[in-house]
Amino acid sequence: TATMKSELHPSVKTCTSSESVLATVRGAKSPEASVYLSNRGNSIRQQQGILQAGFAHYGANRYDIDNPNVSQLTVSLCFPMQLTRSDMLHVDPALLQYGDWRGHTFLREAVAEFLTHYCHSPKLLKADNVVVMNGCSALFSCIAAVICDPKDAILIPSPFYGAITEDVQLYSDVKLFHAPLESEDGNEDGRLFHLTVSKLEEAMQRAKQEGVNIRAIILVNPHNPLAEIYTPNEMLSFLQFAKRCIHAIIDEVYMLTVFDESVTFHSVLSLESLPDPQRTHIMWGLSKDFAMAGNRIGTLYTENQDLVEALTKLGSFHGVTGTSQHQVAQLLQDREWISKEFLPENRRRLKAAHRYLTDELQTMDIHYLDSSATLYVWADFRKFLRSPSFEEELYMWRCFLKHNVVLSCGQAFSCCTPGWFRIVFADQQDHLQLGLSLSIQE
Amino acid sequence: TATMKSELHPSVKTCTSSESVLATVRGAKSPEASVYLSNRGNSIRQQQGILQAGFAHYGANRYDIDNPNVSQLTVSLCFPMQLTRSDMLHVDPALLQYGDWRGHTFLREAVAEFLTHYCHSPKLLKADNVVVMNGCSALFSCIAAVICDPKDAILIPSPFYGAITEDVQLYSDVKLFHAPLESEDGNEDGRLFHLTVSKLEEAMQRAKQEGVNIRAIILVNPHNPLAEIYTPNEMLSFLQFAKRCIHAIIDEVYMLTVFDESVTFHSVLSLESLPDPQRTHIMWGLSKDFAMAGNRIGTLYTENQDLVEALTKLGSFHGVTGTSQHQVAQLLQDREWISKEFLPENRRRLKAAHRYLTDELQTMDIHYLDSSATLYVWADFRKFLRSPSFEEELYMWRCFLKHNVVLSCGQAFSCCTPGWFRIVFADQQDHLQLGLSLSIQE
Repeated sequence: TATMKSELHPSVKTCTSSESVLATVRGAKSPEASVYLSNRGNSIRQQQGILQAGFAHYGANRYDIDNPNVSQLTVSLCFPMQLTRSDMLHVDPALLQYGDWRGHTFLREAVAEFLTHYCHSPKLLKADNVVVMNGCSALFSCIAAVICDPKDAILIPSPFYGAITEDVQLYSDVKLFHAPLESEDGNEDGRLFHLTVSKLEEAMQRAKQEGVNIRAIILVNPHNPLAEIYTPNEMLSFLQFAKRCIHAIIDEVYMLTVFDESVTFHSVLSLESLPDPQRTHIMWGLSKDFAMAGNRIGTLYTENQDLVEALTKLGSFHGVTGTSQHQVAQLLQDREWISKEFLPENRRRLKAAHRYLTDELQTMDIHYLDSSATLYVWADFRKFLRSPSFEEELYMWRCFLKHNVVLSCGQAFSCCTPGWFRIVFADQQDHLQLGLSLSIQE
Repeated sequence: TATMKSELHPSVKTCTSSESVLATVRGAKSPEASVYLSNRGNSIRQQQGILQAGFAHYGANRYDIDNPNVSQLTVSLCFPMQLTRSDMLHVDPALLQYGDWRGHTFLREAVAEFLTHYCHSPKLLKADNVVVMNGCSALFSCIAAVICDPKDAILIPSPFYGAITEDVQLYSDVKLFHAPLESEDGNEDGRLFHLTVSKLEEAMQRAKQEGVNIRAIILVNPHNPLAEIYTPNEMLSFLQFAKRCIHAIIDEVYMLTVFDESVTFHSVLSLESLPDPQRTHIMWGLSKDFAMAGNRIGTLYTENQDLVEALTKLGSFHGVTGTSQHQVAQLLQDREWISKEFLPENRRRLKAAHRYLTDELQTMDIHYLDSSATLYVWADFRKFLRSPSFEEELYMWRCFLKHNVVLSCGQAFSCCTPGWFRIVFADQQDHLQLGLSLSIQE
């Protein structure tokens, strides 16, 4: 397989802060403080990340066929045609009025049934445990606001999807505390960036020493950016670790992207029992699994009614238009179409795109983490760095960007070791071809 | 006219805090602190207001025809049939992907054109000055976050739409500082609860003495709950007052509800020039003017690009689904339908409902503020109170609610004088009839 088993490449051992690097992501200083904004407002305005910069670049060039992209930020291999069915245009007057801030009952019922089926839950999941908001960013923000006080922290293994940093910080003033996984961390199975309970223990110990108050842990499965799928036993061990006193927020937003039929993803909702059900909260959304990031829908499943009540109070900031809720409910209820048409075709295309990309990477002798899910590959470009530093990594990222090749470099995911890149393969093959050719020319 | 010119009713002079009263709105104590939530989370969960309680009651009984309501919280006299047009079901693939967090360009262009026309702007308004989010609550929350630091305050004349308190507080930790208008404040025109610059000056002076840092003023025109329309000269004087150093947030969400053809509403956007354009921000939305509170759309118009940039950073928490954005743009561009069909019919029905309600109030010798806009009437029930206290007002509100008559009492709007109620008349006439009959029986 293409999984790396040896360490041939330069690396740095220390996890240097990349804040100063981030400050110059766009090759320019962040904007001057505005006299019209508060201190908080200025710091919000000056926020800029690599993922966001890459996305802005992608968005600006999306419709220009002369600008190929090796990568884009959301899957668009499959188009959910069901959205154009005529019954999608149902406008019940009640949909135009204020609704339940947790989401309309019909939608929460549809979500509960959908998750019961696709997560293989041993019991029927309940609509009362579902909260629907306009995206997972909104859910992260809300949850951070109500389970943390300002300056509290949430534990997260790194690398991780960098946007979560802003999700919990901008409104809620909560920090992420990293449990760093390093590229040298192969265990006996040869798994790199391997997460273990002892890594979490170490991070908790360090937080305690630094006086940081950890209120929760965020676990993303399948992982972003590693694309790793954790086993039920692994997830159970992480939940047992969390049981002591902190909440576990499980993000399963890529759960339906498993494209290798020999591999099974096990949702936390499929477990016979949870170690601490009142502190275990499962997120899902349509953006990745249904290729609809523009359809602002994120769902939370939690048995904790105190949490549901608190989130409901913030619901008016994160509401979804009634007619959209109707459309999403229709979509989720169409199991025939999802299981027999959309998912098989989406998986087939993801598998083909994944194979195309990984074949090319192998040809170029670029190592990567082998995976069976998600829309991206975590690849090792360390041998191309002139020196093992985040500055060099950023320089390489800018070179790609200059040629309209949007990769995301490791520091955007708070990766400890410079030189790793996330490559999204869910794009048209001719775009991938052109992008890879350009990469080679570099 | 029915405008009150004399003061016959009991009143209290002091603006007593109604917090303890609010704490028992539902006739029960607020929930115990949850061990699963942070201090902030518990205080968010324990938030409960009269408007919200009334709405919850209304929502729970909405479809029960045996439960008449004299009032509801959003207009439903006119149903915007245009939403069911077949071209509303357009699903461009780009709508399903991440978009501009200010709102898609096509929607911001449609909003700019719409506001240029219906606000009678002397110049063409620009799409770059428009921010679209999922409702005005989201906009209030965002704006408070970026122009205020935690514990700062925003000035607002009271009574005012009470939900704004939570809008600026829950996430952004900003307080509203009240400039109280009293029912005795008739000026030479006999206008009660009359707002003047000197009232704002007084409040600013008091804030200074109390060490409160005021960063902005919120002005709602047409007013909620007074239904008053401020003249261009009045608005100019308020903006001149604000010019010194604070932002002016102008909420014109009821601008198209003027149902008396002899009366003209003048938007701040119709002014030849603004005293402080960089600190003047105008909000509008579809919820009231188009009877679509469930269609989560709020718009901001501001020339301040620093503010736009800062709000954009918070956009991922308040995004609107792409297909909804398309539908709203289609609706706003259909000027023929809006001007020739929807608005005339909506105004005709509002006028009839307003006349029906005010005739009944006159028959019952209940005074009210005369008005030509909005969906509600501000009425004086002081003579029915056994004593002039907020406890009595709340008791009366509960009696109405017991009979499924949802009025909103003055303390929900931080009114200084107990005994005033807001009555929404935008409901079916048979509901109004039944509700009023029940009121009389009390």
